[in-house]
Amino acid sequence: MSTPRTRFPIPALDELPEDIRQRIDTVNEKSGFIPNVFRVLAHRPDEFRAFFAYHDALMEKPSGLSKGEREMIVVVTSAMNSCLYCVIAHGAIVRIREKNPRLADQLATDYTRADITERQMAMLDFACLVSDQAAEVSDDDLDAMREHGFSTEDIWDVGAIAAFFAMSNRMAGLTDMMPNDEFYQLVRTQAPAPDKPKPRLVK
Amino acid sequence: MSTPRTRFPIPALDELPEDIRQRIDTVNEKSGFIPNVFRVLAHRPDEFRAFFAYHDALMEKPSGLSKGEREMIVVVTSAMNSCLYCVIAHGAIVRIREKNPRLADQLATDYTRADITERQMAMLDFACLVSDQAAEVSDDDLDAMREHGFSTEDIWDVGAIAAFFAMSNRMAGLTDMMPNDEFYQLVRTQAPAPDKPKPRLVK
Amino acid sequence: MSTPRTRFPIPALDELPEDIRQRIDTVNEKSGFIPNVFRVLAHRPDEFRAFFAYHDALMEKPSGLSKGEREMIVVVTSAMNSCLYCVIAHGAIVRIREKNPRLADQLATDYTRADITERQMAMLDFACLVSDQAAEVSDDDLDAMREHGFSTEDIWDVGAIAAFFAMSNRMAGLTDMMPNDEFYQLVRTQAPAPDKPKPRLVK
Amino acid sequence: MSTPRTRFPIPALDELPEDIRQRIDTVNEKSGFIPNVFRVLAHRPDEFRAFFAYHDALMEKPSGLSKGEREMIVVVTSAMNSCLYCVIAHGAIVRIREKNPRLADQLATDYTRADITERQMAMLDFACLVSDQAAEVSDDDLDAMREHGFSTEDIWDVGAIAAFFAMSNRMAGLTDMMPNDEFYQLVRTQAPAPDKPKPRLVK
Amino acid sequence: MSTPRTRFPIPALDELPEDIRQRIDTVNEKSGFIPNVFRVLAHRPDEFRAFFAYHDALMEKPSGLSKGEREMIVVVTSAMNSCLYCVIAHGAIVRIREKNPRLADQLATDYTRADITERQMAMLDFACLVSDQAAEVSDDDLDAMREHGFSTEDIWDVGAIAAFFAMSNRMAGLTDMMPNDEFYQLVRTQAPAPDKPKPRLVK
Amino acid sequence: MSTPRTRFPIPALDELPEDIRQRIDTVNEKSGFIPNVFRVLAHRPDEFRAFFAYHDALMEKPSGLSKGEREMIVVVTSAMNSCLYCVIAHGAIVRIREKNPRLADQLATDYTRADITERQMAMLDFACLVSDQAAEVSDDDLDAMREHGFSTEDIWDVGAIAAFFAMSNRMAGLTDMMPNDEFYQLVRTQAPAPDKPKPRLVK
Repeated sequence: MSTPRTRFPIPALDELPEDIRQRIDTVNEKSGFIPNVFRVLAHRPDEFRAFFAYHDALMEKPSGLSKGEREMIVVVTSAMNSCLYCVIAHGAIVRIREKNPRLADQLATDYTRADITERQMAMLDFACLVSDQAAEVSDDDLDAMREHGFSTEDIWDVGAIAAFFAMSNRMAGLTDMMPNDEFYQLVRTQAPAPDKPKPRLVK
Repeated sequence: MSTPRTRFPIPALDELPEDIRQRIDTVNEKSGFIPNVFRVLAHRPDEFRAFFAYHDALMEKPSGLSKGEREMIVVVTSAMNSCLYCVIAHGAIVRIREKNPRLADQLATDYTRADITERQMAMLDFACLVSDQAAEVSDDDLDAMREHGFSTEDIWDVGAIAAFFAMSNRMAGLTDMMPNDEFYQLVRTQAPAPDKPKPRLVK
Repeated sequence: MSTPRTRFPIPALDELPEDIRQRIDTVNEKSGFIPNVFRVLAHRPDEFRAFFAYHDALMEKPSGLSKGEREMIVVVTSAMNSCLYCVIAHGAIVRIREKNPRLADQLATDYTRADITERQMAMLDFACLVSDQAAEVSDDDLDAMREHGFSTEDIWDVGAIAAFFAMSNRMAGLTDMMPNDEFYQLVRTQAPAPDKPKPRLVK
Repeated sequence: MSTPRTRFPIPALDELPEDIRQRIDTVNEKSGFIPNVFRVLAHRPDEFRAFFAYHDALMEKPSGLSKGEREMIVVVTSAMNSCLYCVIAHGAIVRIREKNPRLADQLATDYTRADITERQMAMLDFACLVSDQAAEVSDDDLDAMREHGFSTEDIWDVGAIAAFFAMSNRMAGLTDMMPNDEFYQLVRTQAPAPDKPKPRLVK
Repeated sequence: MSTPRTRFPIPALDELPEDIRQRIDTVNEKSGFIPNVFRVLAHRPDEFRAFFAYHDALMEKPSGLSKGEREMIVVVTSAMNSCLYCVIAHGAIVRIREKNPRLADQLATDYTRADITERQMAMLDFACLVSDQAAEVSDDDLDAMREHGFSTEDIWDVGAIAAFFAMSNRMAGLTDMMPNDEFYQLVRTQAPAPDKPKPRLVK
Repeated sequence: MSTPRTRFPIPALDELPEDIRQRIDTVNEKSGFIPNVFRVLAHRPDEFRAFFAYHDALMEKPSGLSKGEREMIVVVTSAMNSCLYCVIAHGAIVRIREKNPRLADQLATDYTRADITERQMAMLDFACLVSDQAAEVSDDDLDAMREHGFSTEDIWDVGAIAAFFAMSNRMAGLTDMMPNDEFYQLVRTQAPAPDKPKPRLVK
């Protein structure tokens, strides 16, 4: 197993605190490889624990947003920040979750032309606003979300995911984190589900 | 005690999970008031726990950066993001830590003219780069930090604090969080320490 | 009395033309110190005279805008330009005029969240437009001001103050002008007037 | 004589204060027409007097900069601000002063390709910095000017002219001031002086 | 005949392929000089042929846009790109086509204040959108054009001209192409047609 | 065969001029499908002919740049312009040419972290400069290219390709052109060639 690229030290797996090593073993078993973010952030165990606790609180819990929709937010806001790690890694997850081999590339380049619903487009507009100019978020922006059926809790989820990956993108840039090669190839060739929404250009 | 402004529900203090209520009691005893970020984020206990665990791992632990320097990073990057809550709240803390009633306002408006050392100026240049364009961080930028005496661990601290408050600023904008009135008045009139550095314009 | 920082020569007070020396004596008696802008600009007596004649024609004359409102325009547009001198000096004056120790910091960081009225928010939106993109000012923008009760003369005042301090901010940057220490401490701790408006986020 | 376009009242010439009317008569006799800026700003006599006193203190006095060079600064910084009045009116003056019918259009579109010397290019680079980001002006920028032979007083002149027209451009946008038709046609067809500098692209 | 400035080789006229030499002879006979774009691009005959075939397909064919309107698009979008060659050369053509000596300078500095109709203003708004942010063009933008009477074919013409000169501006910057002196003087002094539209500020 | 999405009419294949139909037949035989750009641009036969003649003159001819390198320029500059069609279509071609399934996604998100050589990085820096700010291209930028071994003819190629796709991206945005589904899946899973360069972050 190669050591991932970073500008900071990487601890050997067998020197890691037990809880961190177990978390890494679990993801390795499930995915067949260790995503580099785990190895790179393990340099700071307390920050590692807080990072993944935060991640799971947003990305794994029950929500009005599907898991695929949550990954869409990650890909779109990470592309705004030119974050190679997050675009590639979460692009793979969005392809898995949405069973659509085209979706990640569309979201990363121009989400207004992606295979998504009007409701998802509104979600991504709001996520981009939080990611790019959070001080400008207004009550009108929340009302626009509610018109698409998002609850107050859903709106928090969208905004908090955009906020969390604003941090994550910056950690990737700071450390020069690179996506594992495995991510690039996942779910590239299967046919998309037949009921995928018809893309419509909004705004 | 008034309920702070937010766009989301605020749980009553006596309905909060025990650990969160204790954390809030502790800060209240220490500060004489509950900073609004605690009440607003308590809406989501798991996220609250991760947020403050992350915060403490960066801001409270031993570091090559003084606590005052860490707060400087918060004020400067939060001002870039027009985050009223973080500029005012952490501005108060920077005045306390640095015993300089002028420093927070200088940092928030133009840190290149603030009462800081050349080394601190380099630190803030790097923090702004991570906050604003993290994908552009290069090995040359780390070398520039090292020329000012920052260790590899210090550099992680500077970048990780900038990254964490990129998230925090966005949560404040999302929730419409407002600083407590108490923050504005802290450490406004005492004389600064006589040995404060002579400000020098860099670049 | 120390000599203020500048990149250009500063004439001794007793070498100044009589009218300029008298103007400086007057401000010194009134304020208890000589704001650095007077010393720095005195390098060029004719420009000094025109600068302060212009200043007084806008800031001291009767107007539909209160003196506090005129200072709000200065703080907000100077913060857009990262002008440390004007933000700190006129921030002190806005605290004095409005009897609100919080107001200057709010205006400098995010005026949309400041303790001001909807009418004042509209005034500052217009001032920022003139300051940042004056060629884009349209008749619709003037109509929006009129809907908030501003007269044609008031609108000139708002725009002309924004224009004058666009110049002033640039002179401060050119000369590397620094605010006097005295400004930082003025009106920091008194309680704000009880009838201050409830802040409301607009747009 | 037609009344120039503006968003504010224009006083009749015979209702103006004597000193302002005389100033306007003088320019009319010299130019053969009254530039609209005189009519539009006469709405506020005190501001009019300060504006033109400031203008003359910068543009008419002896200086290390030729009058043509001072007009170059006006055209280039006004073009940055999309100020139609100042680009057209001062473009005409630059053609007169420099006896070069091509120069105004070059300066307004891309001064780095204009018929000017390396020294003038450095002057315009500095003027643009003051006009656009004055808080970023550093001692290094002044040193760069000195390497091209500019004295400390010349540097003040360049910066102060850029600052004054930052104000002037904003007044033109606020009032919707339009250039007189006469300006467009001045000095369009004569041959440029044979010794005009060879343009060289810098940076 | 002087050789125009460029960063690349310029073939002698008598070494050019026959069809290119004929094209250049024709423009020389018609204009009295050879616009530099012909000499500079002749370095690559195949690209030359495609460039001018494309140019003629857009600029010379029958269209719902007058030839003068097509040139307006070139001047405005080229000014956005600071392209000296295209602003000066096509500015001359717009003066010829529209018989208005003021129009080119107005369009290059601030087309919203130019002597054009509301319909032409809408056309230029659309052209700027295609030139600056084509991925953002939406069906609403096309509808706004249709409200001003533009047909679907006209809209293609406006967009395609903006697209073609996006390329042309970049070739001018790459090669450091300079406008011929002759362009500056064309149609500077004649009176504009008496029925020119009254300029109105839009937006 | 479905009709591709566009905002303009699409002629039936059997109504097209013979030369255009043959060109489309050829690409269809070679690729197994008709890329949408052929169908959409066929609405204007003369522009179609000029567009593809220009394309072939740049992309198909012998050059100091490999065909894969030319496609890299297209992907990187098209990503700057958020052009979904060109990023996806030319991303597929870059994967084919370079036999690297990761390369297109890297180039589209952050080319400074892509699997390319230092020389290719310099080529893409120059292409981005031409694409984004061509008026700023200076002789120094050409010298930087020469230091990496690019000839004068190579530099023209890089710049002209960036210029041509500046136009192409705008045509895609104007017409709302969408990439064919086939492009997304090409060359996704094969292993990259063993001798691919080690990525190095520059600047």
